[in-house]
Amino acid sequence: MRNLPFTKEKLEEIAARWPTPFHIYDAKAIRENAKRLKKSFSWNKGFREFFAVKATPNPHLMKLLQEFDFGSDCSSMAELVLAERVGNVGEKIMFTSNDTPAEEFRKAWELGAIINFDDLTHWEYFLDAVAVDGNRPQAADLASRLFCCRYNPGPLKGGNAIIGKPEEAKYGFTREQLFEGYRRMKEAGVTRFGLHTMVASNELDPEYIIDTAKMLVDLVGDISQQVGITFEFVNIGGGIGIPYRPDQKAMDLERVGKGIEAAYKASVTGRGLKPLKLFMECGRCITGPYGYLVARVRHIKNTYRMYAGLDACMSNLMRPALYGAYHEIVVPGKESCGDTTTYDVTGSLCENNDKFAIQRVLPVLERGDLVVICDAGAHGHAMGFQYNGKLRSAELLLESDGSVREIRRAETLDDYFATLDFPG
Amino acid sequence: MRNLPFTKEKLEEIAARWPTPFHIYDAKAIRENAKRLKKSFSWNKGFREFFAVKATPNPHLMKLLQEFDFGSDCSSMAELVLAERVGNVGEKIMFTSNDTPAEEFRKAWELGAIINFDDLTHWEYFLDAVAVDGNRPQAADLASRLFCCRYNPGPLKGGNAIIGKPEEAKYGFTREQLFEGYRRMKEAGVTRFGLHTMVASNELDPEYIIDTAKMLVDLVGDISQQVGITFEFVNIGGGIGIPYRPDQKAMDLERVGKGIEAAYKASVTGRGLKPLKLFMECGRCITGPYGYLVARVRHIKNTYRMYAGLDACMSNLMRPALYGAYHEIVVPGKESCGDTTTYDVTGSLCENNDKFAIQRVLPVLERGDLVVICDAGAHGHAMGFQYNGKLRSAELLLESDGSVREIRRAETLDDYFATLDFPG
Repeated sequence: MRNLPFTKEKLEEIAARWPTPFHIYDAKAIRENAKRLKKSFSWNKGFREFFAVKATPNPHLMKLLQEFDFGSDCSSMAELVLAERVGNVGEKIMFTSNDTPAEEFRKAWELGAIINFDDLTHWEYFLDAVAVDGNRPQAADLASRLFCCRYNPGPLKGGNAIIGKPEEAKYGFTREQLFEGYRRMKEAGVTRFGLHTMVASNELDPEYIIDTAKMLVDLVGDISQQVGITFEFVNIGGGIGIPYRPDQKAMDLERVGKGIEAAYKASVTGRGLKPLKLFMECGRCITGPYGYLVARVRHIKNTYRMYAGLDACMSNLMRPALYGAYHEIVVPGKESCGDTTTYDVTGSLCENNDKFAIQRVLPVLERGDLVVICDAGAHGHAMGFQYNGKLRSAELLLESDGSVREIRRAETLDDYFATLDFPG
Repeated sequence: MRNLPFTKEKLEEIAARWPTPFHIYDAKAIRENAKRLKKSFSWNKGFREFFAVKATPNPHLMKLLQEFDFGSDCSSMAELVLAERVGNVGEKIMFTSNDTPAEEFRKAWELGAIINFDDLTHWEYFLDAVAVDGNRPQAADLASRLFCCRYNPGPLKGGNAIIGKPEEAKYGFTREQLFEGYRRMKEAGVTRFGLHTMVASNELDPEYIIDTAKMLVDLVGDISQQVGITFEFVNIGGGIGIPYRPDQKAMDLERVGKGIEAAYKASVTGRGLKPLKLFMECGRCITGPYGYLVARVRHIKNTYRMYAGLDACMSNLMRPALYGAYHEIVVPGKESCGDTTTYDVTGSLCENNDKFAIQRVLPVLERGDLVVICDAGAHGHAMGFQYNGKLRSAELLLESDGSVREIRRAETLDDYFATLDFPG
């Protein structure tokens, strides 16, 4: 049974002001976790986590993470603007995108972001995108800026369940293309380089992350030698999972830190390379476990199965419907009632897969009960849609002092109709 | 190869005014199809199609469908308001929802909608929801209004691939509950009744739909007899599929019409029941094949596979990513070039399943090519999300005279940020 950072009484107090459903994030836990992550990599001078904005694109959370000097991993115009608006500019932005439009390369360039290329052809495309009056940037303009390429090891590395096999993934350069990419950049005058990969998503095995870092650090050695360039950083991406299921264990960040340190020493120090900064682009493990979707039971239905219909739906949390994902459900105030009854916990969408849990054993539920869906702090609100005319809910922040602040208002019908003009 | 209602030149003209990606709907084809549907059921006095608003919740399309006297099948507050705003009120609204909130029952009641209950417990809940100053509606108030229950046959009827097994679906009453439900309504003073079921989604076998109608008409006979009430209508729901794949055939609506007519004659006329109106709640087959997602090739990428990266992404059309759905892709102007090259056709989301097609053989694609993704006219734009900070695109209507009209503007960053206030 999950420990919640709020009692039933506290939640009722919050719900009196902000009607359910809402997302609420635990600032204290996010801070402690951010500290833990930084500490695990404190052996690396220049370590930086670039929070994957897509996970929870809320500027108030981005601001909170700035306390730990986290940057922003951005993948779109909206995310670049979010980073800009919270003051993460320059090399606090890692622009990791794919199938990138010209205007986003332009914006990232203007913001001074680290630009992480997804494909060999993007280098020329980028130079054209940022050209002024047809003039591409000169060697002098490029020399001060930090560029990166995304490596896709293909069949050289097995993938994981969510991201699939690397050779079937749309991301990144092949090994041969990487060498060619860095060569072209060097010729154009680039002097500052990084290397990136991301071959897993929601991975819980520390060795997988350590192996990835090892692979990158080795590759840095090979490219440095053959192309004659020096790397400033490796970006091992995100992909650190969280234990959604009760039988899963959180990844041991300390173990990851130490494992990567050992690999680093062997390769970087061993091969006499210049020191490398270690960068990460985690999203899920930064906020995921510390965000909760709070809803209320609206209906209990007893047909061929027992159903608990909530006032939340897959617009608030798509993962169960989209991936069949498991999210723990806690019923505050009924923790000691015993899990005695099997429910399908549903939303109100006209989609039969709008279910938060299928055949889940829970305490006896009644209309009006508060229900907390755990691990909704990443890829939760962010993935919400308005299908069936559903509105997306508010986001709240539970501050370390116990106070609660609205960090995104709930949508209204006016928001839903904003892009329409009605006939007549 | 699909015949498009526009040439490459015409599309380039449109794209010059409304940049890709956009959805465009073919008004002429929608009209012809609506006529065909009505004709197939013209044997039934009082036949009505209630367009499932969720499929394409655009008031301009709803207005167009009013030409054919189509009503609105609504499942949420936003959809009720859409129906109201286009002038579909009273019994032109079928309010078919599940896990229904009180305020939506209230709104539907105020609009004079046909109210379709999903669960036995909803009757009492509804009476409380619409009570004024604690006074539930009286027999006289209820007598003039049309009420319906949704039947879930459970294991008595096999389901289909998308909607799953009925006994595992969250919708509807069991057979026993139905009798009880109508009994309670009768006691309260209700005099006008309908019966509904929906056990399939995207079904292409006419017999499945005919069997469903048969089942309902028989059940009407049983309930009429045992409860002593008279039914005004049966609502056979939606579920009529469309041929997404080239090897699939559109459902023969004429065959469906004739099949249901035969079943109707056998049951209704045979058992001496009063005439029944036949209602439907189709969405997909009304607009689905007549809507197109138009995009442009942004990048061609050659790594372990060939990728064509579009300027559209799963925010514009979720079905391939969500259901692994097949959508035909046409490259206007290259119809006669021959399908020679295998691509994964992708969007730009940081989600590896953001692919419109996997290993699809197409003409050789180049940057800037227009690409038309077919059958995007239902559950297309409607299911879009803003994950990764993506903005939803415009909707256009190709009028019968060849002119083009914007029926929903594209989103802007201001829309994306509307529910936020930035820190500081």
